[in-house]
Amino acid sequence: MQSLQQKASEWSGVSTDDAFAIDDGDLFHTLGLQTFVTLSTNFYNRVYDDDKEWFRSIFGNSDKETAIQNQYEFLVQRMGGPPLYSQRRGHPALIARHRPFPVTHEATERWLHHMGQALDSTSAIDDDSKIKLTNFFRHTAYFLVAGVERKDQHHHTPCKDAALKQHPCKNF
Amino acid sequence: MQSLQQKASEWSGVSTDDAFAIDDGDLFHTLGLQTFVTLSTNFYNRVYDDDKEWFRSIFGNSDKETAIQNQYEFLVQRMGGPPLYSQRRGHPALIARHRPFPVTHEATERWLHHMGQALDSTSAIDDDSKIKLTNFFRHTAYFLVAGVERKDQHHHTPCKDAALKQHPCKNF
Repeated sequence: MQSLQQKASEWSGVSTDDAFAIDDGDLFHTLGLQTFVTLSTNFYNRVYDDDKEWFRSIFGNSDKETAIQNQYEFLVQRMGGPPLYSQRRGHPALIARHRPFPVTHEATERWLHHMGQALDSTSAIDDDSKIKLTNFFRHTAYFLVAGVERKDQHHHTPCKDAALKQHPCKNF
Repeated sequence: MQSLQQKASEWSGVSTDDAFAIDDGDLFHTLGLQTFVTLSTNFYNRVYDDDKEWFRSIFGNSDKETAIQNQYEFLVQRMGGPPLYSQRRGHPALIARHRPFPVTHEATERWLHHMGQALDSTSAIDDDSKIKLTNFFRHTAYFLVAGVERKDQHHHTPCKDAALKQHPCKNF
């Protein structure tokens, strides 16, 4: 079975090395907290104003301020800054926290479209950082698509291992 | 609804501040790569030799060397070292990657028992680091229990939001 990482690279067209080039250097200290706040604000302003109702409605049960905070705290933590996200919400657990949402290829491309525009409109982000972030977002988005698809596979797979049958299937 | 973080604290008895005290200072540079390799080796040696067949069988489909590598690479990355885990396997996605396993309270306590013994038998770990790691492991283990239980709740919840009904339920 292909790994999540392999699927993410195949579907996104971004190699693992390019996706995690965010870890070469220290993007948090290069860009600073305010830049991430601005980026996430620019992003969710677009998302919550999207004229595509099918996409906007995905976010309909969350308020915009919370969505912005969740995103910039995750990014700050992942890019080498203080672990703001984990202190408040625990491990990122990216796939599990996206489970309630329809992470389809179509939704992913629209998410990435808005993020591309948000990156372009955040002037504090230099070109090198923008390339790194673009690759990271694209690879991560398809990592989530792959994670959601794998989840569905698990749902439909009956317990096969005799030893594991001692445990109720619902725990798998 | 209680957050995953709140449930993890309640069930583990470890506050969020204590769980993420691993981020005060830099545990990776304090302990070094070899200490994490030794800890994970000591841990999985115990797990794969456990005389409780129900527990040992949880790990029956993975080979021990891979389990050791997955764990120490995750720990190194999370404790401030190089992102070895993500470079090889992508985001940790802790809850999703534990989905195939029966993460029950009983299994969690046995996991923590072996980890406590592994920490005690890894002499390079000083007392302060041991306290931090013990709290981190205990809180994280119950974070996973909470994540798995939440997953089960989602399974049994029909699509309620009219806007989201445009998407097939299996994506949730």
